[in-house]
Amino acid sequence: MFSLLRYRDGTKVPRSRKVKMTTMQTKLITAVNGVDLTRLTETVEAVKAASVLDRFKFRIQNRWIGGGQNRSKVQQFSAGGKETQHMTELTLEADEPDVLLGTDVGANPVEHLLHALASCVTTSMVYHAAARGIAIKQVESSLEGDLDLRGFLGLAPNVRKRYQQIHLKLRIKADVTDQELRDLASLGPNFSPVFDSIAKGVPISVSTERIA
Amino acid sequence: MFSLLRYRDGTKVPRSRKVKMTTMQTKLITAVNGVDLTRLTETVEAVKAASVLDRFKFRIQNRWIGGGQNRSKVQQFSAGGKETQHMTELTLEADEPDVLLGTDVGANPVEHLLHALASCVTTSMVYHAAARGIAIKQVESSLEGDLDLRGFLGLAPNVRKRYQQIHLKLRIKADVTDQELRDLASLGPNFSPVFDSIAKGVPISVSTERIA
Repeated sequence: MFSLLRYRDGTKVPRSRKVKMTTMQTKLITAVNGVDLTRLTETVEAVKAASVLDRFKFRIQNRWIGGGQNRSKVQQFSAGGKETQHMTELTLEADEPDVLLGTDVGANPVEHLLHALASCVTTSMVYHAAARGIAIKQVESSLEGDLDLRGFLGLAPNVRKRYQQIHLKLRIKADVTDQELRDLASLGPNFSPVFDSIAKGVPISVSTERIA
Repeated sequence: MFSLLRYRDGTKVPRSRKVKMTTMQTKLITAVNGVDLTRLTETVEAVKAASVLDRFKFRIQNRWIGGGQNRSKVQQFSAGGKETQHMTELTLEADEPDVLLGTDVGANPVEHLLHALASCVTTSMVYHAAARGIAIKQVESSLEGDLDLRGFLGLAPNVRKRYQQIHLKLRIKADVTDQELRDLASLGPNFSPVFDSIAKGVPISVSTERIA
């Protein structure tokens, strides 16, 4: 089934690579890269069999604390058309550093954006590698985004508010050839929802209500 | 100076609104919405006076833990062409919920993306409102993003991996007219770097190295 997974150019991805057995993997034979292959197969088959199962809705609720500080709560989401939730309510903090007039108790919004990108590229690569039976030993990434503050401050109408560009450096340890390493590295950008969201943009609808 | 700040359509934003004094604000007369107006003014003046001061670089380092779990460290950044850092090293966790084969110890990458968006829209509105002397009492937002898992799984080449759309509901408490509330609400989307990044997209460069 995983031969259904294709590279961006449409070529099928070979699944001939055998998983190298380590003590850990011998114990947990159906997991590659910590991803349960039996459940991954079941998920793919379920999504293929019933169209509603492909629909996910993710949600957060954010609350302003003061100044540059605010906090998001994450718990409910919709998976395959069914309401479900995280095991616990998760809390995400945001603040600005002192130089941007905050109290520096959390990463700032544009740093959170880089974290979303890094985490999604890594997980996408790890899952798709697992589906191909490619064992990964280590993944690290460094991300940097360039911002011109004149955009945010509204001082120069021709300067965009957004990051001008983002640089993503990926470092991978795996027993693969150089060509296979490049193919492996391409899985993240090719399949990551956050990479695609940031690289190509997403329509955002905004509505406003007054709190009485 | 804040009359330099303009709405997206180019009209100047009136700065005539007087800050309503509360006990809190009387004590801290130079702060509006918890944002230090003296320092905000100094920052704007500094950026206007020296072009290098507008250049910021934000960075994270991410490391895969296993399966769908990974972790980012945030500390160094470059502000106005000068290397600086957060007071402490900040840690951001990412994982997937059980239904997506993770161990559910953190929000997932697409939820982090929503947090980045919510936090940036809120902070951008709060800072720009402060610059205009508009006191905000409360801000909450609910975000929801729609994802079709067939994109991520590579099951349907015509289905995008990214969020198909994001809905942002903003709730604000402030002593303003309905028109002023709409103008206030527009400040976030109009000035937020993350909103602009996601709505319009950012070029992402990717490089790969092997870990020996």
